Amino acid sequence: MELDLLIEKAKAELMGSKDSEPVKHSCKLQGHDDSQSSDASQALAGCGSRDIARFIDHTLLKPDATCEQIAKLCEEAKEYRFASVCVNPANVSLASSLLRGTQVRVCTVVGFPLGANTSLTKAVETRDAIANGATEIDMVINVGALKSGDYDLVKRDIEAVVDAACGKALVKVILETAVLTDEEKVKGCLLAKLAGADFVKTSTGFGPGGATTPDVRLMRKVVGTEMGVKAAGGIRDYESTRQMLEAGANRIGASAGVKIVKEACEHETR
Amino acid sequence: MELDLLIEKAKAELMGSKDSEPVKHSCKLQGHDDSQSSDASQALAGCGSRDIARFIDHTLLKPDATCEQIAKLCEEAKEYRFASVCVNPANVSLASSLLRGTQVRVCTVVGFPLGANTSLTKAVETRDAIANGATEIDMVINVGALKSGDYDLVKRDIEAVVDAACGKALVKVILETAVLTDEEKVKGCLLAKLAGADFVKTSTGFGPGGATTPDVRLMRKVVGTEMGVKAAGGIRDYESTRQMLEAGANRIGASAGVKIVKEACEHETR
Repeated sequence: MELDLLIEKAKAELMGSKDSEPVKHSCKLQGHDDSQSSDASQALAGCGSRDIARFIDHTLLKPDATCEQIAKLCEEAKEYRFASVCVNPANVSLASSLLRGTQVRVCTVVGFPLGANTSLTKAVETRDAIANGATEIDMVINVGALKSGDYDLVKRDIEAVVDAACGKALVKVILETAVLTDEEKVKGCLLAKLAGADFVKTSTGFGPGGATTPDVRLMRKVVGTEMGVKAAGGIRDYESTRQMLEAGANRIGASAGVKIVKEACEHETR
Repeated sequence: MELDLLIEKAKAELMGSKDSEPVKHSCKLQGHDDSQSSDASQALAGCGSRDIARFIDHTLLKPDATCEQIAKLCEEAKEYRFASVCVNPANVSLASSLLRGTQVRVCTVVGFPLGANTSLTKAVETRDAIANGATEIDMVINVGALKSGDYDLVKRDIEAVVDAACGKALVKVILETAVLTDEEKVKGCLLAKLAGADFVKTSTGFGPGGATTPDVRLMRKVVGTEMGVKAAGGIRDYESTRQMLEAGANRIGASAGVKIVKEACEHETR
């Protein structure tokens, strides 16, 4: 089915009417200009090599990451001016204390990487992460509920996190696109939008596949300019970063951030 | 280093004295005879083909599992009399309602599969799972803390779950052995014992490797007969199940439970 038709059908199914737009969620983070896509491709065009860093969540989610490795991640984030460090909840306090007084934000993950936790657990994990210093929350949807057609549960699950983050943190909704059909991807995006989230995000990096440019294009088309799109999973060099930004992403999750910035420098000096 | 020496050194480091034994934890589940290893190899020896089922946690932890698949898992568990179904927290309510009035227990996972959540989140997830009907909790340790040498955090993290489960659920502690050195495996077992858990468990099934017989042997040697040992991850047939039980496991986590029981039948009729 053609994408436009798919989107129209999903809107009709999830919103009751083709034309109805999601109500602006009262908990949506206000005044944060980072969720829009407007400047991503412009910044790329005249990109000072380091400009690319501000689109990157510098990521270390390996379960066996040591304190030393988290400290190194934070040092690199300060040096290269990444948008954030993205760490597991158990490392938020440490990262937060190491980044106090800098521009680098602390991003963490909720219900990660399976998303198959209860909404209560996801909400508590969100509140706890914010109390520990996180200002960005990357939550995983209940994939099984989406697969089972329980759209109400998927939406309420996202809302639980948006409400828990209320005004204090950006919420990115991870769809794990590699296990979804196009129809499910479209519905996931619409439900994230309806629930008042700030971003949709492709992948956890722990699933069977990562970000692809067609998926990023689809997601941008569904959410429009009102939300951000984060591409993550398997983005390991400047070339794929550039492709994702051109496809409509305005945030990149990568553990290879330093390499990507260095390659951007080389690209600039050619 | 020889294993005996490794264990003695780890005991001295973690318990202050070679001879001190862990204090019996007041929250340890009482009267549950399933954590002992005594009958596993006996049952195997004169095994009616279906006897093997009672050592198996019939497992479905794929994040995209649908309600239908969970229902099928529960049907199979009733038919084959598995020890439990092991499902993600979001599916505990459903499994619990489907298994009400049967002997099959509901097992779930906490801080799964990375273990890099805060202790608060793990405790809340445990309480929530028990409220929803779980009576077995498979929690993942904070692997990064173990790698960083923060043994106190590892122990407190397990204690948070044991306390939250107090008297209402069996607690199994997943070490994710594939990413640990032998010394770390020994320490992980000792910390689980000190924290009052009921079982140690090898793997999540989502890490870089699953259960091995040397790891099961090591774990059984460290925890003795006072705790259970669950082997999980990559156990897909009767032969490997038999090997794990002979090595000292008294519980098996497997998604191939039906196949294993059928192979046990064939083995019996030879």
